[in-house]
Amino acid sequence: MKKYLSYGMAGAGLNSFIGAVHRVGAGFDGTAFLKAGCFSRDAERNRECGEFYQLDESRVYASFEEMAVKEGAREDGIDYAVISAPNNEHYRMAKAFLENGIHVLCEKPLCFEISEAEELKKMAEEKGLLFCVNYSYSGNNMVKEARELVKNGLIGSVINVNAEYLQEYLVDDIGKGDQTMNRLSSWRKDPKAAGISNCTGDIGSHIEHTVSYITGLRLKRLAAKLDYFGQPLDLNANMLVEFENGAHGVFSSSQVCVGHMNGLVVRIFGAEGAIEWHEEEPNVLFVTKKGQPMQTYHRGMAYISGRAASMNRLPAGHPEGLYEAFANIYKVWNTAVLKKAAGENLTEDDLDFPSLDDGIQGVKFIHAAVESSKNDAAWVEL
Amino acid sequence: MKKYLSYGMAGAGLNSFIGAVHRVGAGFDGTAFLKAGCFSRDAERNRECGEFYQLDESRVYASFEEMAVKEGAREDGIDYAVISAPNNEHYRMAKAFLENGIHVLCEKPLCFEISEAEELKKMAEEKGLLFCVNYSYSGNNMVKEARELVKNGLIGSVINVNAEYLQEYLVDDIGKGDQTMNRLSSWRKDPKAAGISNCTGDIGSHIEHTVSYITGLRLKRLAAKLDYFGQPLDLNANMLVEFENGAHGVFSSSQVCVGHMNGLVVRIFGAEGAIEWHEEEPNVLFVTKKGQPMQTYHRGMAYISGRAASMNRLPAGHPEGLYEAFANIYKVWNTAVLKKAAGENLTEDDLDFPSLDDGIQGVKFIHAAVESSKNDAAWVEL
Amino acid sequence: MKKYLSYGMAGAGLNSFIGAVHRVGAGFDGTAFLKAGCFSRDAERNRECGEFYQLDESRVYASFEEMAVKEGAREDGIDYAVISAPNNEHYRMAKAFLENGIHVLCEKPLCFEISEAEELKKMAEEKGLLFCVNYSYSGNNMVKEARELVKNGLIGSVINVNAEYLQEYLVDDIGKGDQTMNRLSSWRKDPKAAGISNCTGDIGSHIEHTVSYITGLRLKRLAAKLDYFGQPLDLNANMLVEFENGAHGVFSSSQVCVGHMNGLVVRIFGAEGAIEWHEEEPNVLFVTKKGQPMQTYHRGMAYISGRAASMNRLPAGHPEGLYEAFANIYKVWNTAVLKKAAGENLTEDDLDFPSLDDGIQGVKFIHAAVESSKNDAAWVEL
Amino acid sequence: MKKYLSYGMAGAGLNSFIGAVHRVGAGFDGTAFLKAGCFSRDAERNRECGEFYQLDESRVYASFEEMAVKEGAREDGIDYAVISAPNNEHYRMAKAFLENGIHVLCEKPLCFEISEAEELKKMAEEKGLLFCVNYSYSGNNMVKEARELVKNGLIGSVINVNAEYLQEYLVDDIGKGDQTMNRLSSWRKDPKAAGISNCTGDIGSHIEHTVSYITGLRLKRLAAKLDYFGQPLDLNANMLVEFENGAHGVFSSSQVCVGHMNGLVVRIFGAEGAIEWHEEEPNVLFVTKKGQPMQTYHRGMAYISGRAASMNRLPAGHPEGLYEAFANIYKVWNTAVLKKAAGENLTEDDLDFPSLDDGIQGVKFIHAAVESSKNDAAWVEL
Repeated sequence: MKKYLSYGMAGAGLNSFIGAVHRVGAGFDGTAFLKAGCFSRDAERNRECGEFYQLDESRVYASFEEMAVKEGAREDGIDYAVISAPNNEHYRMAKAFLENGIHVLCEKPLCFEISEAEELKKMAEEKGLLFCVNYSYSGNNMVKEARELVKNGLIGSVINVNAEYLQEYLVDDIGKGDQTMNRLSSWRKDPKAAGISNCTGDIGSHIEHTVSYITGLRLKRLAAKLDYFGQPLDLNANMLVEFENGAHGVFSSSQVCVGHMNGLVVRIFGAEGAIEWHEEEPNVLFVTKKGQPMQTYHRGMAYISGRAASMNRLPAGHPEGLYEAFANIYKVWNTAVLKKAAGENLTEDDLDFPSLDDGIQGVKFIHAAVESSKNDAAWVEL
Repeated sequence: MKKYLSYGMAGAGLNSFIGAVHRVGAGFDGTAFLKAGCFSRDAERNRECGEFYQLDESRVYASFEEMAVKEGAREDGIDYAVISAPNNEHYRMAKAFLENGIHVLCEKPLCFEISEAEELKKMAEEKGLLFCVNYSYSGNNMVKEARELVKNGLIGSVINVNAEYLQEYLVDDIGKGDQTMNRLSSWRKDPKAAGISNCTGDIGSHIEHTVSYITGLRLKRLAAKLDYFGQPLDLNANMLVEFENGAHGVFSSSQVCVGHMNGLVVRIFGAEGAIEWHEEEPNVLFVTKKGQPMQTYHRGMAYISGRAASMNRLPAGHPEGLYEAFANIYKVWNTAVLKKAAGENLTEDDLDFPSLDDGIQGVKFIHAAVESSKNDAAWVEL
Repeated sequence: MKKYLSYGMAGAGLNSFIGAVHRVGAGFDGTAFLKAGCFSRDAERNRECGEFYQLDESRVYASFEEMAVKEGAREDGIDYAVISAPNNEHYRMAKAFLENGIHVLCEKPLCFEISEAEELKKMAEEKGLLFCVNYSYSGNNMVKEARELVKNGLIGSVINVNAEYLQEYLVDDIGKGDQTMNRLSSWRKDPKAAGISNCTGDIGSHIEHTVSYITGLRLKRLAAKLDYFGQPLDLNANMLVEFENGAHGVFSSSQVCVGHMNGLVVRIFGAEGAIEWHEEEPNVLFVTKKGQPMQTYHRGMAYISGRAASMNRLPAGHPEGLYEAFANIYKVWNTAVLKKAAGENLTEDDLDFPSLDDGIQGVKFIHAAVESSKNDAAWVEL
Repeated sequence: MKKYLSYGMAGAGLNSFIGAVHRVGAGFDGTAFLKAGCFSRDAERNRECGEFYQLDESRVYASFEEMAVKEGAREDGIDYAVISAPNNEHYRMAKAFLENGIHVLCEKPLCFEISEAEELKKMAEEKGLLFCVNYSYSGNNMVKEARELVKNGLIGSVINVNAEYLQEYLVDDIGKGDQTMNRLSSWRKDPKAAGISNCTGDIGSHIEHTVSYITGLRLKRLAAKLDYFGQPLDLNANMLVEFENGAHGVFSSSQVCVGHMNGLVVRIFGAEGAIEWHEEEPNVLFVTKKGQPMQTYHRGMAYISGRAASMNRLPAGHPEGLYEAFANIYKVWNTAVLKKAAGENLTEDDLDFPSLDDGIQGVKFIHAAVESSKNDAAWVEL
């Protein structure tokens, strides 16, 4: 059985922080190596990036299409492609790699349109290719522990969910209109690159996935109020949500909430207990059984259940962070790709990375939120 | 000028924790003394209570009506009545005391119907009587500081509000139907005594008032989803809210959220900063200016502004709690009653206790939430 | 059996925050009433104070000696005296009241000299009088819970103690020498009024008592380094401590640690578990069993053990603070005085207030710390 | 100028968590690659490890001596060696690499004897070789920020230090004597491998270095009490410390404090302010100026000063952890080695990694603590 993988990168040049996170995350366990890339449309920056990573010149491509075709044709072509480009590129890139028989790990949101998302799913299934949509927070050790505890019934049936993802980094955009496009030059604020939503698409979608991953429940419908503050895309979003089991809750995401850096906080309330996780303190999990004191679970301790324990990298108290969340996504993903290559069957645990179904649900979520808000927070089914 | 006040208590017998809070709170500063009462409909318990408080036997009344009439007629009658009885009694009690020329401090919610609330307001105005609706959290020192900071522009204009009040104490009622009425025998769960709402009326209304007190903004409309879990009244409520200035937000209140004891948390986000207060840690206030580190303000420090500083009772770090919040409400209230008795004009600061307008808004809030939820979270104007 | 008590106050005039705490605390449960006092050596302030409290003029005394004699002689004389004056007054005041057959509740530290402390103990025993030394933090509900849990073996035998009491309020005195005496005019900084120590005597002694109260262990010896920063009395103190069972630990107290308001934090480590309490968050207790997640105990919950539960005043989550700690001290004290008056035997629980033995240990602690520091942190036995 | 480095590993086989941390940390920025190693004395495990890392077979060595000699002789030999083996190996390994002209990055504590430490320093200086002693916590972004703020005078002169490093993981060893050696088979508990101290050497030494790094102050003397609980080496240590500027403080380190996972907490108090950092929440720093509210600094924000900002890897709120602390140590180290290779002069910033002087001080610290404790906590100069 093959022991090492090679992958190619679409997007994520040297100046992109997330590029480093992918590179370090993919290679964390010493099993996957960057061998090809199309990092930038700027030829010089593309070349510099390939050179820095010591790639074979012939494998630094001018376009992702070329990369897909040539790598797909090489005997020693990349095992998978990592897509870390603005949202508007995801669909075309993913399609190109799938068409050329290359597994895909793609940043979220998966793509603009639900139909595109479903098309990608169909393609991957027909080609027998693996596809991961990188909702990276589900890689966190204690998010896995939360999922396990909920699955094991510790909190009983879910009755209420209160989740939020608050940031302040765009608060200066309030009332500034298009001027801000130049100032920060972030593609996330540009409808052409980001699609129909900024805040909801970028961070609200992480709430949706993390909650779904922990609870095993899909959203049934939502009623959302998005705030634009004079910008083309939303900067703030509050919504009522209803899950498939009838439970209600609220999701709040914002890029204008002063005092919050990257405040993804998920609180799941069940009839028997509750669970709470904070992305900024990812190594602990707050677990309470009805009528009992709150317990602070620490990653790495002997009481942590099997799935999370198997992802543990450091002794308790030595903080793991975002890189390790990525590394865990890649740990499962790399193993799955290796097993696939060896013709092995993949178990449920082998597929414990965000799927195309998760990606499709994410696109539906964004569309529902924007549509609901246009209709003054009328309920919209997902 | 008169220096001491006497008051009478309607409700709040010896076994009622809130009775002690009122008694201690009213007398905290040594200026108001309990002199009359109708503590219980049970004659024996009523008598025992009066005896314990060493009241004159003739001033322990069999009914609040009798108390209102007789105290109103006495030369040395009570200066004000404190109403701390189940909700369904508030209106009739308040009316009786006002009719007999007695100032009223009444627990919230003020009454069942908006029309009743407006009638009380009209009566109080016509009689020239003072009326406080006891939204006690607004007595907290750091809530006053928050109000002051917002008023002084520290956070700029309010753009988003995220507030919650979570408790777990009724989680066992889920799916138990009427059986629970006997078990806990709480009047709050009985529509006859509590009115149309349990959770929203009891604690959701505190969110509404505290936010309004801090921001100076009234709610314009809301879209609410209440959960009943088989009970006659709501146990859980999530809602989208819109303020008079157009800002949005979410309010969540619950009596079934495991792990939360009395979790009133108010977060106000403005275009220039943010402010956050937790009832369970009432002595601190989290204040952040845009782009700056979060600051933890401590009650009692020299940087605390005038209004809050004037309410300070203990050096910084020595915790004040719920009793002191009540004591602050009473400090302002007692002073106002004394000034009124002396024929002085009352300034805005003198009237810094929750008013009948606050009480009316509270009744509107409860009605709007219940109506909205009946209509599947349609917007309802207050 | 007598149901109500009257007491007199020595010290603690209107401008003293601690006076209000005593008055509210003593009367919290409606059983004890201020009936006499010698509040100030300034005749006018003394009179004003008595008038404000509506005392009988004849019971507002020019000197504590007069109060002791006259109240001791009255048929309806005070049941007990509360001593809340500068440290240098404690011994003479306590002696005077005991001599006149009056029970005494005295602020800590008990007095200057160990011999005085032992004399007071002998007097109280001979006269059959009760004496409470007001280490008020031991009145906190969760401190009582901590003591109960330790007694019940939850943490096993104590192996290490880490406790501190940090404040910043005198940081401006550093290097200012005697100038600061006028500026803040605090008697705590004046050796004549405060004795041989400021920081260690005022707050270090609270560490000593709180730890002893929770663990049931006395200090055997200590090695201390006190810092004076140019002042006549210590502002900062670090010490190694050894308990009678051989366990070690550190105590740190300071009035110059910026960022700390009233940071009494006690952490007791045993071979089976640990317990941690913070005075600024007094309603919770952090409890951990070996190998298990930390648990956050909340005052007022059903799992709280009997002794602490019996002192509970508010539902869980509604914060109690310093006033309630005092109220709990007084609750036990008042009951003990009433039982004593009725000729009843007092049980261990009846005597659950800080005793003269605690007071003596406190004086020894202060002497040991100062002596050790003079000898460059040599060990000194208590 | 050379752009990439190769290094060799002495120790840290596949089953060692710290091995992965070094490998990921060294390669985080894509500039250093593992090319040689002697991972284990067990030939098979050594071979497996080399194979897994895809090393050239000829560069997987049976002994570190062979590795030192052969790599030193190769044209393309390793640029530096990483020593991550039990303490008793450090000195001989370091010496061997230095002798063969190879730069060394060595785990702490540097070695057993002060004379050995000084010998290594002399060798490195004579050979013109770089040497880093891996006090990894000094790589944390916010530790660098703390150092910067102290250097810039934000807290004034240091007047008191309170620092601790508490763990619970050896609490089961209490009173178990030598039995525990087999059970956990940790070399840290074995005097042959660990030296004269377990707890003080392993974690107490991190307190010493982190405090020194942040304050720029060396310890002058200490008075320590170590607890052994029947074990050959210490499990718990409390000490009074005195710095070269006369400031005092306490250091507590423990492996038997239940409820603490990896609790390194450093609090530095100055005459103008204070600074506090927690290893388990490494992305924030608590900063207070005298008389002002505490401020919570977040890594990645614009107000973070230059040195820390230059080490930033992720946007604020996205947690960095222990791997990134290592990566920062390696970032500076790798750059220094590259500059050295290019013959450039190294600035102070270029040498911002723990030095041989730090390593020597660490060895002195351990010796002083053990000696002091043997003499019943007598002061020992460093």
